[in-house]
Amino acid sequence: MTDLKELYDYVDAHAQEYIELLQKFCRQPSISAQNVGMREMVDLIRQEMGAIGVTPDVVETSGNPILYAEIPGRNQDRTLSFYNHYDVQPVEPLEEWHSDPFAAEIRDGKLYARGATDNKGSLLSRLCAVKAFQAVYGQLPLNVKFIYEGEEEIGSVHLSEFAQKYPERLKTDGFAWEGGSKQLNGPLEVCFGVKGLLFIELRCRTANSDLHSSNAAIVKNPAWRLVHALATMKDERDHITIDGFYDNVKAPTEYEMHCLETLQFKEEETKQRMGLDGFVNGLTGIPLLKKFYYEPTANIAGFKAGYLGEGAKTVEPGSAVVKMDLRLVPDQTPEEILEKVRAHLDKRGFTDIEVVRLSGEPPFRANPECLFAKTVVKCVKPVYGMDPEVFVSSSGTTAMYQFCHAANLDAVMFGAGNDASNIHAPNENIILEDYINAIKMAATVMAEFAVAKEEDA
Amino acid sequence: MTDLKELYDYVDAHAQEYIELLQKFCRQPSISAQNVGMREMVDLIRQEMGAIGVTPDVVETSGNPILYAEIPGRNQDRTLSFYNHYDVQPVEPLEEWHSDPFAAEIRDGKLYARGATDNKGSLLSRLCAVKAFQAVYGQLPLNVKFIYEGEEEIGSVHLSEFAQKYPERLKTDGFAWEGGSKQLNGPLEVCFGVKGLLFIELRCRTANSDLHSSNAAIVKNPAWRLVHALATMKDERDHITIDGFYDNVKAPTEYEMHCLETLQFKEEETKQRMGLDGFVNGLTGIPLLKKFYYEPTANIAGFKAGYLGEGAKTVEPGSAVVKMDLRLVPDQTPEEILEKVRAHLDKRGFTDIEVVRLSGEPPFRANPECLFAKTVVKCVKPVYGMDPEVFVSSSGTTAMYQFCHAANLDAVMFGAGNDASNIHAPNENIILEDYINAIKMAATVMAEFAVAKEEDA
Repeated sequence: MTDLKELYDYVDAHAQEYIELLQKFCRQPSISAQNVGMREMVDLIRQEMGAIGVTPDVVETSGNPILYAEIPGRNQDRTLSFYNHYDVQPVEPLEEWHSDPFAAEIRDGKLYARGATDNKGSLLSRLCAVKAFQAVYGQLPLNVKFIYEGEEEIGSVHLSEFAQKYPERLKTDGFAWEGGSKQLNGPLEVCFGVKGLLFIELRCRTANSDLHSSNAAIVKNPAWRLVHALATMKDERDHITIDGFYDNVKAPTEYEMHCLETLQFKEEETKQRMGLDGFVNGLTGIPLLKKFYYEPTANIAGFKAGYLGEGAKTVEPGSAVVKMDLRLVPDQTPEEILEKVRAHLDKRGFTDIEVVRLSGEPPFRANPECLFAKTVVKCVKPVYGMDPEVFVSSSGTTAMYQFCHAANLDAVMFGAGNDASNIHAPNENIILEDYINAIKMAATVMAEFAVAKEEDA
Repeated sequence: MTDLKELYDYVDAHAQEYIELLQKFCRQPSISAQNVGMREMVDLIRQEMGAIGVTPDVVETSGNPILYAEIPGRNQDRTLSFYNHYDVQPVEPLEEWHSDPFAAEIRDGKLYARGATDNKGSLLSRLCAVKAFQAVYGQLPLNVKFIYEGEEEIGSVHLSEFAQKYPERLKTDGFAWEGGSKQLNGPLEVCFGVKGLLFIELRCRTANSDLHSSNAAIVKNPAWRLVHALATMKDERDHITIDGFYDNVKAPTEYEMHCLETLQFKEEETKQRMGLDGFVNGLTGIPLLKKFYYEPTANIAGFKAGYLGEGAKTVEPGSAVVKMDLRLVPDQTPEEILEKVRAHLDKRGFTDIEVVRLSGEPPFRANPECLFAKTVVKCVKPVYGMDPEVFVSSSGTTAMYQFCHAANLDAVMFGAGNDASNIHAPNENIILEDYINAIKMAATVMAEFAVAKEEDA
């Protein structure tokens, strides 16, 4: 391994500067689902890239732009690409936050903000690594490419378009993907795949407005329609009963099952942290992990009907909507599942329920035996003092497939958050030490991957 | 019948003044469920009662006060009481209103505002009738009592307390209740009873906050829990399947079924106005009316879980709540049904779902053969030019039981709204002509009931 002590010392000495930069980024809202602050965020990134002498190409789409930049390195024959996103999730329910989601308040060594971990911490860890590398060593050891999208949280709507328009910009030897977590006081997670995702709305309208609830005796209630439809889609044992839903699910291989045994999932800690009285169906051990990483889901992400305020209001809703996200595993596809949901409802007479696709992403798994994957795994111990946990597939989703499937690329996820970062939830946070380590990790991967050879791996 | 031409002319001549007073009342929000503007509303009523020389007793409760006043009349042996309420429903969903709910905008002969019909129009029609009667004839023809509560929309929480504390204030010969509607271009509705109501929340919490939806594979979803519980409580044919729910439902008598035949329910118009493609189970005719007026309901008034905004958010809710109102018919009681809901859920393993009672009101039916009821029915034609529709029971609920059951009183509902008034819904409105007629109607009832004799009825 390359000796990077000088670099690590430099990063430690400049920690306060990196933290203030993260605060600056977190204080700029950039909620793609609600189109809040997106342009201002793009300007802020351009400014900070300018500080390391890079002018990104702002590729306009009909949604939010994709920022692309490249920096040539000493080893011109090897390229490392960083994929990140600058958009964040909405902040609701606001009342459950202990501080303003965009105040970026620091408490007990953590920075609390929407986007702190997902994904501004990760994005900046890599940008700061490049900055530090340049400051300490001058030129980068290999070519670096940045791809920052602004629609990850709404399904990476324009990423395929970008990939098709600029195939040369995708060319790389290793794709450092966003995401990836870390056990609290435990190992960093390195991950080679993701579940797919189908996000839909089930919409039902039975009257042209909300009615006095005395009408419930004679007017169909759209919330009841959705309840009855949903009750046919999953049973109380969490088995998804949409017709044909599991048809294309591949059973995990022996190797994939073996990987689960190496994981250090802390059941009791997780239950305590999330306030659970137990996991689904009382699962524990390997069956729990198998369900978590290798099985699909059908989640109710939102149910909105009628009166949502405090107290009583005797109203019959005129319309109701359910938001559902279904996490998919190989070889399910969003298209296939969307069709199956529609057919399932039609067969049972729920033709009055509209199914609207909001986004879709196929599942993806990279080759865990490639040079880049092996290099990333090797870089973890010098930074974190222990080997990583290695995941065949994350329980979550990113747009890996759109970039990696067609171009036959391998991608590895590692990040700056931990499993108590509350991403997508109130009180999202990042541990400042993890953030600083993520800077060192990105720098280490640059240094090591620049000189890595197949025969050594 | 007494000749009231002079009074009617006076009311017509002062119509503009009465309309402006209604606007003034509607512009003062008084949302009991959200505790908005209640004290200001009380002050406004005191002011206007002062204008007719009456200082109401403001009876404090731990919630909103009940206003009580009495005015002695010429016939000191006969008393007419007016029950109304000064609180209104919440205004959500705000985006469906065509004008501000508290602007009291007048368009095409209608006044649009939350509370225009329910119940400020009715309240003022009676106050203005007294005002006009005094202006034209001096003294009132009989004793008049006013009881105005401020918690009708949240279940008349303190009405029983008032009834127990002041039994003499309840004493009366006839109770003109609030509510009651009118066919558009058709007869006024006069009504002798109401359904009961149990309003509950079903609450489920499975985690201490909303989670990233990748956790859906292993963490119980409270919205799914509620879906599965609800699916056991009513079937797709709108049959309520809560164990023992119909045990105490009395079948309608022959007389009650006969009453349905005299009703002029306009099915096609109602469907068109509400934007329905049909009624529940395709019902029509007498079976439709029977369900509407004589059968209980289990309505989902609100379902709130997870992300409710625009677009996609991949979140698993940590908690979820369903608001339900169940309209009850004789001899069901809120207490009985609450117990049955709890037992039903427990029996099926839904012990993790909390059932919280927000309000309850037993059903009530007055004697349709009493002197007051017969007098009210007779007063309709002189004002409206046609006989009323007479209902044994409304499809809705008021707090009649709390006042009338113990004191063995008879109450009759008649009001100022119509069946397109959108009460409890966006764009609530009152037809100004109906409002002016309601003033004449209240005055006519005072005049006629002052001299009505059992032997003439």
